[in-house]
Amino acid sequence: MTLKSGDEYIESIKSLGLEASIMGEKTGNLTNNPLVQPSIKAVAATYDCAQNEKTKPLFKVISALSGEEVNRFTHLHQSTDDLINKVIMQRYCGNVTACCFQRCVGLDAANAVFSVTYECDHEHGTTYHQRFKDYWTNIQLEDLVVDGAMTDPKGDRGKRPKDQADPDLFLRVVKRKSDGIVVRGAKFHQTGMLNSHEIIVMPTLNMRPGEEDWAVCFAVPAKTPGIKFIYGRQVSDTRKLEGQGMDVGNPIFGGQEVMTVFEDVFVPDERIFLEGEVDFSGLLVERFAAYHRQSYGGCKAGVGDVLIGAAALIAKMNGVEKASHIRDKIVEMIHLNETMFACGVACSARGHQTAAGNYEIDMLLANVCKLNVTRFPYEIARLATDIAGGLLGTMPSARDLEDPVTGPYIKKYLAAAKGGDVVDRMKVLRLIENLVAGAGSVAYLIESMHGAGPPMAQRIMIGRQADLESKINLVRNILDLQ
Amino acid sequence: MTLKSGDEYIESIKSLGLEASIMGEKTGNLTNNPLVQPSIKAVAATYDCAQNEKTKPLFKVISALSGEEVNRFTHLHQSTDDLINKVIMQRYCGNVTACCFQRCVGLDAANAVFSVTYECDHEHGTTYHQRFKDYWTNIQLEDLVVDGAMTDPKGDRGKRPKDQADPDLFLRVVKRKSDGIVVRGAKFHQTGMLNSHEIIVMPTLNMRPGEEDWAVCFAVPAKTPGIKFIYGRQVSDTRKLEGQGMDVGNPIFGGQEVMTVFEDVFVPDERIFLEGEVDFSGLLVERFAAYHRQSYGGCKAGVGDVLIGAAALIAKMNGVEKASHIRDKIVEMIHLNETMFACGVACSARGHQTAAGNYEIDMLLANVCKLNVTRFPYEIARLATDIAGGLLGTMPSARDLEDPVTGPYIKKYLAAAKGGDVVDRMKVLRLIENLVAGAGSVAYLIESMHGAGPPMAQRIMIGRQADLESKINLVRNILDLQ
Amino acid sequence: MTLKSGDEYIESIKSLGLEASIMGEKTGNLTNNPLVQPSIKAVAATYDCAQNEKTKPLFKVISALSGEEVNRFTHLHQSTDDLINKVIMQRYCGNVTACCFQRCVGLDAANAVFSVTYECDHEHGTTYHQRFKDYWTNIQLEDLVVDGAMTDPKGDRGKRPKDQADPDLFLRVVKRKSDGIVVRGAKFHQTGMLNSHEIIVMPTLNMRPGEEDWAVCFAVPAKTPGIKFIYGRQVSDTRKLEGQGMDVGNPIFGGQEVMTVFEDVFVPDERIFLEGEVDFSGLLVERFAAYHRQSYGGCKAGVGDVLIGAAALIAKMNGVEKASHIRDKIVEMIHLNETMFACGVACSARGHQTAAGNYEIDMLLANVCKLNVTRFPYEIARLATDIAGGLLGTMPSARDLEDPVTGPYIKKYLAAAKGGDVVDRMKVLRLIENLVAGAGSVAYLIESMHGAGPPMAQRIMIGRQADLESKINLVRNILDLQ
Amino acid sequence: MTLKSGDEYIESIKSLGLEASIMGEKTGNLTNNPLVQPSIKAVAATYDCAQNEKTKPLFKVISALSGEEVNRFTHLHQSTDDLINKVIMQRYCGNVTACCFQRCVGLDAANAVFSVTYECDHEHGTTYHQRFKDYWTNIQLEDLVVDGAMTDPKGDRGKRPKDQADPDLFLRVVKRKSDGIVVRGAKFHQTGMLNSHEIIVMPTLNMRPGEEDWAVCFAVPAKTPGIKFIYGRQVSDTRKLEGQGMDVGNPIFGGQEVMTVFEDVFVPDERIFLEGEVDFSGLLVERFAAYHRQSYGGCKAGVGDVLIGAAALIAKMNGVEKASHIRDKIVEMIHLNETMFACGVACSARGHQTAAGNYEIDMLLANVCKLNVTRFPYEIARLATDIAGGLLGTMPSARDLEDPVTGPYIKKYLAAAKGGDVVDRMKVLRLIENLVAGAGSVAYLIESMHGAGPPMAQRIMIGRQADLESKINLVRNILDLQ
Repeated sequence: MTLKSGDEYIESIKSLGLEASIMGEKTGNLTNNPLVQPSIKAVAATYDCAQNEKTKPLFKVISALSGEEVNRFTHLHQSTDDLINKVIMQRYCGNVTACCFQRCVGLDAANAVFSVTYECDHEHGTTYHQRFKDYWTNIQLEDLVVDGAMTDPKGDRGKRPKDQADPDLFLRVVKRKSDGIVVRGAKFHQTGMLNSHEIIVMPTLNMRPGEEDWAVCFAVPAKTPGIKFIYGRQVSDTRKLEGQGMDVGNPIFGGQEVMTVFEDVFVPDERIFLEGEVDFSGLLVERFAAYHRQSYGGCKAGVGDVLIGAAALIAKMNGVEKASHIRDKIVEMIHLNETMFACGVACSARGHQTAAGNYEIDMLLANVCKLNVTRFPYEIARLATDIAGGLLGTMPSARDLEDPVTGPYIKKYLAAAKGGDVVDRMKVLRLIENLVAGAGSVAYLIESMHGAGPPMAQRIMIGRQADLESKINLVRNILDLQ
Repeated sequence: MTLKSGDEYIESIKSLGLEASIMGEKTGNLTNNPLVQPSIKAVAATYDCAQNEKTKPLFKVISALSGEEVNRFTHLHQSTDDLINKVIMQRYCGNVTACCFQRCVGLDAANAVFSVTYECDHEHGTTYHQRFKDYWTNIQLEDLVVDGAMTDPKGDRGKRPKDQADPDLFLRVVKRKSDGIVVRGAKFHQTGMLNSHEIIVMPTLNMRPGEEDWAVCFAVPAKTPGIKFIYGRQVSDTRKLEGQGMDVGNPIFGGQEVMTVFEDVFVPDERIFLEGEVDFSGLLVERFAAYHRQSYGGCKAGVGDVLIGAAALIAKMNGVEKASHIRDKIVEMIHLNETMFACGVACSARGHQTAAGNYEIDMLLANVCKLNVTRFPYEIARLATDIAGGLLGTMPSARDLEDPVTGPYIKKYLAAAKGGDVVDRMKVLRLIENLVAGAGSVAYLIESMHGAGPPMAQRIMIGRQADLESKINLVRNILDLQ
Repeated sequence: MTLKSGDEYIESIKSLGLEASIMGEKTGNLTNNPLVQPSIKAVAATYDCAQNEKTKPLFKVISALSGEEVNRFTHLHQSTDDLINKVIMQRYCGNVTACCFQRCVGLDAANAVFSVTYECDHEHGTTYHQRFKDYWTNIQLEDLVVDGAMTDPKGDRGKRPKDQADPDLFLRVVKRKSDGIVVRGAKFHQTGMLNSHEIIVMPTLNMRPGEEDWAVCFAVPAKTPGIKFIYGRQVSDTRKLEGQGMDVGNPIFGGQEVMTVFEDVFVPDERIFLEGEVDFSGLLVERFAAYHRQSYGGCKAGVGDVLIGAAALIAKMNGVEKASHIRDKIVEMIHLNETMFACGVACSARGHQTAAGNYEIDMLLANVCKLNVTRFPYEIARLATDIAGGLLGTMPSARDLEDPVTGPYIKKYLAAAKGGDVVDRMKVLRLIENLVAGAGSVAYLIESMHGAGPPMAQRIMIGRQADLESKINLVRNILDLQ
Repeated sequence: MTLKSGDEYIESIKSLGLEASIMGEKTGNLTNNPLVQPSIKAVAATYDCAQNEKTKPLFKVISALSGEEVNRFTHLHQSTDDLINKVIMQRYCGNVTACCFQRCVGLDAANAVFSVTYECDHEHGTTYHQRFKDYWTNIQLEDLVVDGAMTDPKGDRGKRPKDQADPDLFLRVVKRKSDGIVVRGAKFHQTGMLNSHEIIVMPTLNMRPGEEDWAVCFAVPAKTPGIKFIYGRQVSDTRKLEGQGMDVGNPIFGGQEVMTVFEDVFVPDERIFLEGEVDFSGLLVERFAAYHRQSYGGCKAGVGDVLIGAAALIAKMNGVEKASHIRDKIVEMIHLNETMFACGVACSARGHQTAAGNYEIDMLLANVCKLNVTRFPYEIARLATDIAGGLLGTMPSARDLEDPVTGPYIKKYLAAAKGGDVVDRMKVLRLIENLVAGAGSVAYLIESMHGAGPPMAQRIMIGRQADLESKINLVRNILDLQ
C-alpha cells in the first residue's frame, strides 16, 4: 500500500457518503459543503505532509506491526524519540493549518488501547490485544483517519452512569448477541468525526463493579447503520457561507465538532476491545487522556506560532513593531507558547515502554502539559488582542470593502504603515479575530480548556501522580524526624 | 420637558432617518434592522430605567444647568456621590442588558468638555465654555443620546498627524469659513454611533504647536451632510439574522460599532468647543479618557455579574454546583469582578471639584481601574468557559433542536440535572458563549482591552500620576539620606 | 485631657513595667530592649502624627462619645468619610514607618464590639453596650493603645473547640465568680501586644450552642496577673542587636509579634462584653475581621509606597532608571499597590451606619480588599527583587564596610552610578531586603497573607456576601426563563 | 584516581587554607566556621552521592577526555541523555540538601568554555581548546570543585566597561607579561566560591572592539595571591551561630555567596582560554548562561519538592490535609514545580552536538526554563506561606522552647493535630520559614531571580532565538500574502 495524498483522502471521505444534520438541514455531500470543507482540508494536510519531500522524514515512519511505511498519525510509538517527534509533527501541522487538524484523537486512542488490551488480556485471559493489532494493522496500511470517541453526555454530573434518570446518558451495551453487541448512547464534542473513516469508542470514566454495561470499547466504521451526526455550531460559523475568505479569517482550514448518536448500533465481536472489564476502564481513560494531553503541547504551540506571527505582522503594519512594550508582549507570548511545547517534549523524553511494547509518556508531566494549555493560550490571545487594536471588534465587512461607495473610505482610513497593504492588514486582523474570538477560538481556547478533559481532571491526576509521601520523606530526612 | 420613555427614544431615532452601510448594503430604517435593533434596545433601557419606579431615584437627577430633572446619563457631576452613583447606575445597566448600553461616552465627553473649555477660556480668552453650556443644557432638556468620537485611524502609529502619508488619518479642519469650519477625517470604533442624536468630536491625542488643524472639538447632529457610517462586523453577528433568539445568546440586547467618516462636514461656530488651542487638546483627551476609564469599573462589573450568574446556573444544571472547585472558581470570578467595581468606586470617592464646578474622578485610580479591566474580564471569561464545559464550542444549532429528527436526540442527550430544563440549559450555554466568544465578547473582552485606550495608555498615565519622586523621598526620610 | 506625644506614650509604656520572654531570656525594661524598641517607636509615630501641624487634621477627630478631641486610632467612625480617612491615615503611617505600626487592631476591635454589643443587648437584654461605651470613653480620653486579641492556637483545625485534646487550645472561661470570670488559653500572633496598655480579647470563630465557655469577649490591662508574653522570632531579628542600623534595613522602626498566654486570668464584670451568647460570637469575628481587612488596604499600600520608592531609587543608583523594562515594572508595582488602596477606599465609601450608630464598611468589598492583599504585595516584592539585583542576597555586612582592609574594596566595587553614594546605595538595598526577605517581610508578606485571616477566610465571606441567587436572576430575566 | 568521598572533599578544602572576611572578622579555618560549614556540607553531598550505591549510576559517568569514571558534576556532556541526566541529578541534590549545592557553576562553565575555545581557535588560530582540555582533564581526575565567576560589579549599568568612572568595575587585564597576564577587578555573587578548589573567570557581557582588555577568560586556583574573599550576608545568617539547629530551619545544609576581589592577580599562559578575542566573548556568556539556565530547571525543582513536602506535612500536623483548598494549593505547587522541571528536561532533550563534540541544550528552551524559574518559586513560596499559617512569622525561639518557664506553654499551645509532635511541627515551620523568608530564600527566591541573569536577560535571548520572521511567514502562507 502507498500512503494517500490529500486529494486521495478527500476522495475516500467523499466515497463514504456520510451525512450530517447541520443548521436544521442535511449537509448533502460533505466534501462540497462550505461549512465542512475547511475541516476536511485540514485533515488532508496531514496526508500531504507525508508526501512532501521536506516533511516526509518527520511524517513517515516504519510500522512495528507490519514493517511497512505508515503515516506517523497512525503510528504506535516505539521510543521516546517517537514520542518527541509526534509533538514536533503536531506543532508543524498547527503551523500549516492554524487550526485543529483533527487526526490526533485516533492516534492517541490507538496507543492507549494497544497497551491496555495487552494488560487486560494478561489479567483476564481475554484476547482483545490481538484483535486490536489486526484492526490497527489494517488502519495503518489503508492510511485511514480514526476518530476517538470518549465524552458521554453525562447528564447529572453528580451521579454515576447507572443512577442517571436516563441510563443512555453514558453509552452502553443494550443487548448482547451471539456475534456481537448492540450499543446505545451518544458521544459529544467529536472533533473531526465527519472526516473520519473509523471510530474508536471508549468509556468516559472509571467504571465500577455493577457498571459493566458501560465499560465498553470498540471500533466501528463511521458509516454504520444507527450512527447519526449532528453538527455543532461554532462562533461565526456561517461566515464560511458568505463566500468571502477574508471575513472567515482562516481562508482555507477550520475545525469541526460533531454530536454523535449511537442508536442501537451493532458491533461485531472482532471489533470489541473491552466489554465489562470495569477494572481496565479507568486505565484506558487515563492513558488516552495522557497521550492526548501530550498532544496539546504540540498542536496548540503550533497554532500559537501563527498567532504570534500575526501579532508581530500587525504590529509592523501599524508601525509599532519597535515599541518596547510591543516587543515585550511578543516575547511573553513566545515564552508561554514555548513553555507548553517544552512540557509536551518533556513528558515525551521522560516516557517509558509499556508491557505491550509501545511507548507511553510520563503521566505526571503530560497532565502538567495540559494544565498549562488551559491557561497560556488565553493569555496569548489576550496579548494578541492588545497588540492588534480595537479594529478586532469593529472592522467593516469584506463586502463593504468591495462596495464602490464604502470601499474607498475603508481603504483610505484603514491604511497601514508604509510598506503595508490595506487589504493584507485587514486579512491579518481577521485571522487574529478568528483565533481569539472567532471560529478558530473554538479549538484554540475552548478546546484548550476542555479537550482531553477540563483542568480539574488534570489536577486530580497531578495530585495522584506526584507521590506526595516521598516529598514528605525528603523533609523527614532533612529534619531527622522520626 | 419630561424625560423620554424607551419607546419614545426609539421613535426619535427612527425619525432621524440615519442610514449606514452594513455587509455591503444599506441598512434601511435602522430601528427595523435586525443587526441594529438589539443595540437600540440597549440604549432604550437607559431611558426606561429613568421611568421605572424602582430605579428612577438612581437614574433621575437635578441638573445644575437648568434646575430640571434630567437623566443621569446627561448629568454634569456635582459631588463625589454623583460620581459613585454613575458607577452604580452603569453596573445596573450592565445587569439588565448584559452588553454595552452605549450611552456613557457622551456623558463622559460632556463632563470633560465642560471643565476643559472653562480652563481654556481662562487661559486663552475664548468663549467655548458658555457655548458648551448652552449646547448641553439643550441636550439634557431634550434627553438626547450623544456619541463621543475620539479615536482617529492613526495610520502609522510611529508618526505624528502632520507626518502621515495622508493628513486625513487624523480628523482635521480643512477649511475655515466666516461662520464655522469644515472638517475631514474619520473616527473608528464608534460604539452606539447610530443610536445617537448627536456627536461630540474630540482629538485623539495631545497635539503640539504646528498641529492646530488637528486640535479641534465640536458637536454635530448625527444626521449631518457629509457624515457616513460603515457598520463594523462583530463575531457571530449574522446569528441575529437567523430569527433564532437562542443562538444569538443574548436574545434582546447587543452592541454596535461604527466606522464614521467625516467628508468635508461643516460645523457652525456655536458648536465649536476647541479650535487650535493645542495646549488643551491633551488635557481634553486625558479627562475624557479618565472619566471613561472610571465607567468601565461599573459597566463591565455589571456584565460580569450576568456572566457569573450564568456560570452558577449552568453549574446547577450540570449538577455540580456544590463541587468545591466550582464554588472556588465562582468566588474567584466574584472577587475579580468586585475588584474592578471597587476601583470604579474608589476613583469616584477620591474625586474633586474642577475649576468649572463639576466633579472629576481621581486620575490615578481611574487609570488603575481601567488597567484592571484589561485583565480581569479575560480571567472571568476563562473561568466561565471552564465551568460551562465543552458544549460551549460544540452544541448543535437552535434549528437542529427544532428539527423533528434531530430535535429529540438533542433533548435526550443534552438533558440537564434534575430540575433543569434542556432548552433553558441550551439558552444559558448560548449566553455564556455570547459573552466569552460571541458577539457579546466584542464589548466584554475586546472593548475592555481597547475602549478608553489600550493598557499602555493607562500605564503611561499611571507612571505620570504616581509621583514617584515623593515615594523616593519616603525612603530618604526613613534612611536619613541626604 | 490632651493627647499624648510619642515620647509621653513611650514613658507610659515604660511605666507599665511589662516583661516578656525573648530568645530564652527576660526582656527587662522593654523600652530599652533593642529587639523591642523599634516596634515601640512605630507606635509612637501614631502619637506624633496627631501633634504634627501638617498631619493632625487627619489624625485628630472629635469623639462622638465624649465630644473631646481624640486620636483617630481610637475613634468610632461616624461617616463614610471617617472610614475613608482611616485608610488614608493608615497609608500615611505606612509611608512614615515602612512597617506595621500596630495600632489598628484595637481600633478595629472597638468598632466591632461597639455595634455587636448593641445588637446583642437588643436580642438578649444584656447590658454590654453601656459597659463598652464607658470603657472606650476612657481609652479615648487617656489616649491608650489597645491590642485586639483574636487568634487561638486551634490545635487540630479539623475539630471544634470542645473536641480538642486540650480544651484550652481555644481561650475559655474556666470559672465564674460573683464579680467576674476566670479565663485560660492563649492568643497567637499578637501584633504590638507589648506596646499596648490594654487588651480586648475576642473569640476566634463562630461558636455554637454547647460552646458557651468559648464565646467570651472582654478587656484587661496588659499588666494583669496571669498574662505571660513570649516574643516571636522574626527573620533576621538579631540584626537589631548588632548595633548597625544599615544591616537592619529599616533603621528606626519595626514590628512585633507576641504569643500571649492567659493563665487563669480574672476579668471583672464591668470589663466583660460577651459571655456565652454564642449567636453573637460569629458576628463579632466577622465585623472585626472586615474592619481589619479594610485596614490592610491602607497600611500595606503605605509600606508598598516605600518599597516602590526604594526600587525607583536603586534603579537610579544603578543607572537604569530610564530603561523601559524598569519603568514598566515600577508602573506595575504602582498599579497593584493602588488597586489594594482602591479596595480599601471603596469598602469605606460603600459603608453604612450600624444600629449602634457607628459606621461599618461594606463587608463584601472589605473581604475583596484583603484577598488582593494576600497576592499583590508578593508580586510587588518579586518585582522589587528583580529591580534591586542580586546584591540583595550577597552584599557584605556593614561591619565589613567599616573594616579598614575590606571596606575600601567594598566601596570601590559597589560604587553607584554617577551622583549616587555607595553607602546610601547599600542602605537602600538593605531596606529592600528588609521588606522582601527580612524582618519587614513578616508584616509585608506573611501578615499580608494571614493577618485578619488567611485567604480562605476571605473567600468564604465573598461567597457568602455575593448574593449569587440575585446574579442567577439576572440571567433568568435576560433569557426569560421561568 | 578514585573519586573523593564527602569527607575527603572537606579535608581537601581544609588543606587549601582559604580565608575570608566575614562580619568584619577573619573566618579562620573555613571548615569549622559555623557560618560556612553548612555550605561545605552541601557540596560534600555531591561527592557522597557518587559513592552511594543507589545514586552512583546517576552521578558517575565515563569521561570522554580520559576514559576514566568521573563525577557527573565535572562531565562534558556527550548526548542529550547526558543533558537530561544532569537535570535529574540536580533535582536529586536539591531533594537531599534543600539548598543550593553550588557545584553546577563550574560544570556549566566547563561545557561552555570547551565549545567556545574550539570555535575561537578555528576562527583565530589560537590554541585555547587544547589548553582547556588539559586543564579540565586534571579537574576531572582530581575530582575538584570549580567555581565559575562571571558577574562584574558593573557600576553604572547604562555605560560600557571602558566608559565607567573606574575601569576596574569590569574585571580586566592590567598588564601583559612574557608568560601570562595580570588581572584586576571583582566578581560578585560568587556562589560556593570558598568551597571551590579552582575558579574559572569569564567576561560578563558581549565585549566590542576596543574592549579587548575586558574580553578575558582564565582559570586560577582559589588559593592564589591577590584574591580576596568577602562573605555576603544572608537573611537570618547569624542563626547559624546560635547553636540551635531548629531556628536555622535547615539544620545541616546551606548556601554561600562571596564577593571576590582580584587585586592584580597573575595568570600564567596555560590557564588563559580567551584574551582579547572580543567576538567570542558574547558567545561564551550566552552558552554559559544557557547551560546555567537549564540547571535551574533541576535544582530549583529539587528544592521545590522539599518545600511542597513541608507544606503537605504541616497541613497534616494542622489537621487540614484533607481540606479541598489545601489539596488544591498543593496540586498547584506541584504543577508549577514540574513545569520548571519539564522545561529543564525539554531544553536537554532538544539539545545538539557542538562543533567541539560536547552537547549543548536548546538555547531558546533553556531561556524559557529560567524565565519560569524567575516566577514560579515565588508563587510556590506564597502558597507554602498560605498553608503554613501565621506562625511562620510569630513563632517563639528554640531557646524559649527549652526554657523551663516558657517551654511548657509553647508545648501546650503549639500542639499539633493527633499524631503530630509539637517539636517536629516547629521544625517543619522553621524549614518553611528558611525557604520562603530565611537564609534558604537567598537561593530559592533571590537566586532564582538573578542567578544566570535576571529575567530581562532571558527575555532578550527569547526574542532573539524565537525566529519571529518564520512565524510571520506562517501567516503569509495561510493568508497567501505576497
